[in-house]
Amino acid sequence: MPSSIHHVSEPPYAYPLDEYRLKVRLKVKRGSAASCEALYADRYDSPGSEQPILMEKIGNDRYSDYYEAVLPALKRKVRYLFLVRTHAGESYWVGERCVSAQRELAGSFQFPYICRNEVHAVPDWAPQAVFYQIFPDRFHNGDPSISPAEAEPWNSEVPPTPLSLYGGDLQGIIDKLDHLVELGINAMYLNPIFRSPSNHKYNTSNYYEIDPSFGSMETFKQFVKQAHERGIRVVLDAVFNHSGDAFFAFQDVVENGDSSKYRDWYFIDSTPIVKEPAPNYETFGNAETTMPKLNTACPAVADYFLDVAEYWIRETGIDGWRLDVANEVDRRFWRLLRERIKGIDDQLLLVGEFMHDAAPWLHGDQFDGVMNYLFREAALDFFARQTIGAETFTELLVSLQARYTEQAFAAMMQLLGSHDTERFLTACRNGGRGWNKRETAASRMQLAICLQMTMPGMPVVYYGDEVGMHGDNDPDCRKPMVWEEQAQDRAIFDTYRTMIALRKKHASLTSGSMRIWFVDEANNAFGFIRRTAEETAFVVINNGFNPINVPQLNLEGTAVGGSAVVDGISGERYTATAAGEWGAQQPIVKPFGCTVLIQS
Amino acid sequence: MPSSIHHVSEPPYAYPLDEYRLKVRLKVKRGSAASCEALYADRYDSPGSEQPILMEKIGNDRYSDYYEAVLPALKRKVRYLFLVRTHAGESYWVGERCVSAQRELAGSFQFPYICRNEVHAVPDWAPQAVFYQIFPDRFHNGDPSISPAEAEPWNSEVPPTPLSLYGGDLQGIIDKLDHLVELGINAMYLNPIFRSPSNHKYNTSNYYEIDPSFGSMETFKQFVKQAHERGIRVVLDAVFNHSGDAFFAFQDVVENGDSSKYRDWYFIDSTPIVKEPAPNYETFGNAETTMPKLNTACPAVADYFLDVAEYWIRETGIDGWRLDVANEVDRRFWRLLRERIKGIDDQLLLVGEFMHDAAPWLHGDQFDGVMNYLFREAALDFFARQTIGAETFTELLVSLQARYTEQAFAAMMQLLGSHDTERFLTACRNGGRGWNKRETAASRMQLAICLQMTMPGMPVVYYGDEVGMHGDNDPDCRKPMVWEEQAQDRAIFDTYRTMIALRKKHASLTSGSMRIWFVDEANNAFGFIRRTAEETAFVVINNGFNPINVPQLNLEGTAVGGSAVVDGISGERYTATAAGEWGAQQPIVKPFGCTVLIQS
Repeated sequence: MPSSIHHVSEPPYAYPLDEYRLKVRLKVKRGSAASCEALYADRYDSPGSEQPILMEKIGNDRYSDYYEAVLPALKRKVRYLFLVRTHAGESYWVGERCVSAQRELAGSFQFPYICRNEVHAVPDWAPQAVFYQIFPDRFHNGDPSISPAEAEPWNSEVPPTPLSLYGGDLQGIIDKLDHLVELGINAMYLNPIFRSPSNHKYNTSNYYEIDPSFGSMETFKQFVKQAHERGIRVVLDAVFNHSGDAFFAFQDVVENGDSSKYRDWYFIDSTPIVKEPAPNYETFGNAETTMPKLNTACPAVADYFLDVAEYWIRETGIDGWRLDVANEVDRRFWRLLRERIKGIDDQLLLVGEFMHDAAPWLHGDQFDGVMNYLFREAALDFFARQTIGAETFTELLVSLQARYTEQAFAAMMQLLGSHDTERFLTACRNGGRGWNKRETAASRMQLAICLQMTMPGMPVVYYGDEVGMHGDNDPDCRKPMVWEEQAQDRAIFDTYRTMIALRKKHASLTSGSMRIWFVDEANNAFGFIRRTAEETAFVVINNGFNPINVPQLNLEGTAVGGSAVVDGISGERYTATAAGEWGAQQPIVKPFGCTVLIQS
Repeated sequence: MPSSIHHVSEPPYAYPLDEYRLKVRLKVKRGSAASCEALYADRYDSPGSEQPILMEKIGNDRYSDYYEAVLPALKRKVRYLFLVRTHAGESYWVGERCVSAQRELAGSFQFPYICRNEVHAVPDWAPQAVFYQIFPDRFHNGDPSISPAEAEPWNSEVPPTPLSLYGGDLQGIIDKLDHLVELGINAMYLNPIFRSPSNHKYNTSNYYEIDPSFGSMETFKQFVKQAHERGIRVVLDAVFNHSGDAFFAFQDVVENGDSSKYRDWYFIDSTPIVKEPAPNYETFGNAETTMPKLNTACPAVADYFLDVAEYWIRETGIDGWRLDVANEVDRRFWRLLRERIKGIDDQLLLVGEFMHDAAPWLHGDQFDGVMNYLFREAALDFFARQTIGAETFTELLVSLQARYTEQAFAAMMQLLGSHDTERFLTACRNGGRGWNKRETAASRMQLAICLQMTMPGMPVVYYGDEVGMHGDNDPDCRKPMVWEEQAQDRAIFDTYRTMIALRKKHASLTSGSMRIWFVDEANNAFGFIRRTAEETAFVVINNGFNPINVPQLNLEGTAVGGSAVVDGISGERYTATAAGEWGAQQPIVKPFGCTVLIQS
């Protein structure tokens, strides 16, 4: 058991919540600890002055339990160690030196000083955000006069190719803002809108110009204004890992070779530049010749793109950036970007694109949060593919929570799909156990939506998902938006609308803590609890064929009932005893249903 | 056992050795793994293209084994996972998602891109450095004309107080350089030398001026020149966490209060500035009123001290900085400092003062290494206090190695004592088991020196230790240097000289890998192996009363013998069979002795 104990004095195991509070986390073998205590003192106080504090178990994954405590740090300087007592009656001290049965040998950990500029602060609005993601060429054509000549008919039966253009534009988004208002959206993330020859515009030609097929600067400003008037924040997509090959700096290297003053802006193996048989310059991905990789470590490059990032904020009032291929750009650049952007306004959001674990980028010096593809993967396995059950799924959820700081977890883009993935509904249709009737795919997705809208983080609706659009991987997931109501799945729309409204109504669902409440592996169901000082939400996700009774309102043996609770969706009222037990009337959760009980 | 498996894709568990090689490390329960494999691929290659590589066990601490592999990263982008097979016949896949018996569920880790500016490069000379630390007021008085009027007699019987001055100076160091040459020193670290009213000079009054009691700028330049001519590098002490209260910026706040343009340079609670009953400004430590804490997050402050750091390098040719109270200054400032300093010359050294684990500061963006007080603590317990035996001591050594990257470990200042601690010899004299005869204290220390000089890292000799000086904690550890040969312990001096010469002669002892070879708990002895492609050093440390036979030359069951070995100290030759077995003539290590066998 002592071999399983893990702690280091850095995020996510130790990090400041604010200037005077340090959160510490401990990982121990599942089920092994009878109790975990943290003992803390001011670093300059004498040995023996440590105060004990009992740690809270926040959850478990397959093999580990996670314990947490918040240590006061009135002078910003903390010394601490842990005492783990096992069910077998053993005691282990955990310090920076080692895990040991002897306190003296273990030593202490030191969090030497909480620097004011190292507290991870995310925008206040992030935990309340519900995002909508738009791929602009495919949302709505509001101004046919600027559509590309080769644009496909919007409702063409032919599926999109990697090269298709459809004529969606900014005026189209403005025209459809009320659709987002109806859904309850309060933030929007647009795929790239700057001048670029492709439909996806990830190969930027000019970072200072809206693509003319999307509209003018005037239209964009109008769009931001209209969105803001509706309480919708606007986040744009910044592609700083690479430019397009038509970008002036790369063109200068193409034309001038070694004598170009932009040669250091890229990673050029030799000149003159060639694309065939293989590019003689570094590119994004596997030799994507239209996307030469930028050398962001070069000061002139960093300055150029920091200016770009600042320009759009100051000029148009956007609310943040989503950073493309954030995992392949040097951290120095991201730190400079954060400093520049947060220096303008600490309420601006910075979210990175990561398809994988992003913990090293979420210590507070780079991104607020990331696109949480790991959440999507887990949800796919549980809801769509049905390859894992409630136990494994809750273990994956806890492991996601435990790998990040509390602040970063609150600023995760919790997505079910994006422009780079198969649509979630399609994954449900193609999912396991031979269920391939369309209505069943929808109900699977609806249950996933219920989870997404009751979890911490910033849920994201990928355009079209809310009306039941299907789509395989890129380019099929980028089909033009379906606007004809008779072709839409209004039940899915209603689920989104209902759950978003519920989320926005209850602070427990946005800023509350999250703890797994129970797992019912036999019925493939689980419950979790979101909790603030004022309000508790009990959420049950029943991903099985049987109706289940909502269990007693208690968590880790502690009753959390004692008053009336209201079903947040139906409005029905129930009463639980102080011990958390239900009377005659016990709430029931339907097969493939979700119940959210609110206690306040 | 799966609960014990730990890996995250960040240092020290994953980090680049250079632009195209990624080192990965895995922690598993001690003795549980029959084998650990890493499977790796280019991130953009399809699933199934992973290549397996067997990991090497690099050592163990009390509860964990550590395994390592070096993964090729020809395109800088690595995807990998691990396969752990247990002695019980189970297999576990280890990916970023979880530890699982199913490969699909575990997922992979991603080291998305090895950025060129994120490879931790330490100066080439660091692993070869043998440092000597000088507290300038106490080393030698070479120019009595500039000595403080109140200077104590050098050989006064009265022990130093916190306020004593003795008149040591830069000319004194120049005069004694040949002492360092005799010892074999090739690098020097000086405690602060800039103008300051105290003897320790950690409360700097003027960062641009040598303290007049130490000498002039001319003398200092002469000192650096003379040191360099003898192949000795010079590292100075930079105090950027706080200034002295006589520093112009603080004085401006004292005089002008809120209207001072230097108010933001400090953390001022209120004005006017008062020191009693408690300072109304933040200070170093527990209300050290002469050391107001600097606000290094303030751009003007950062600029000022970056300029200071650059000035002394450009003006005088020093070889690096030791940064005081490095653990309480914001990381942003240290990153800026590294960029500025390494931008001048990547062979300049940056070492931080840390009394505790410093892993978060050693990812390559801040320090090369730190003062390794954790090594000293372990050596104290084993050699001086004798509170731990060979098994615990080797576990602590491995845990020190395993918590840092290879590069950082090579740039650790391996110290036995400093101006802030009890001297090691005194700790030996006061140590456990009732041994308090002076000669025995010396032999304990001599054995610690043998270890220090055969370990990875940069050994440091604290002035006077080499001649057997005693001293309790500060101020007693800062007594004037003993120069009269009859008052010196020449045996200790000879041990230093012999072991330093041995270290400098054998590349295996500086740049070789380090693996524990055997532990003989009964005899309180252990061996370790330092190894380069060309040379192997077998080191035995016998910290017990019995002579011991050097065991077979094999490591983890693999013979590493097969040719003649030479005792590096005595010059005697031995032969081991290919299986590592000794013939009739088997080397023996004396009680409290060290043997170093070299095979090349």
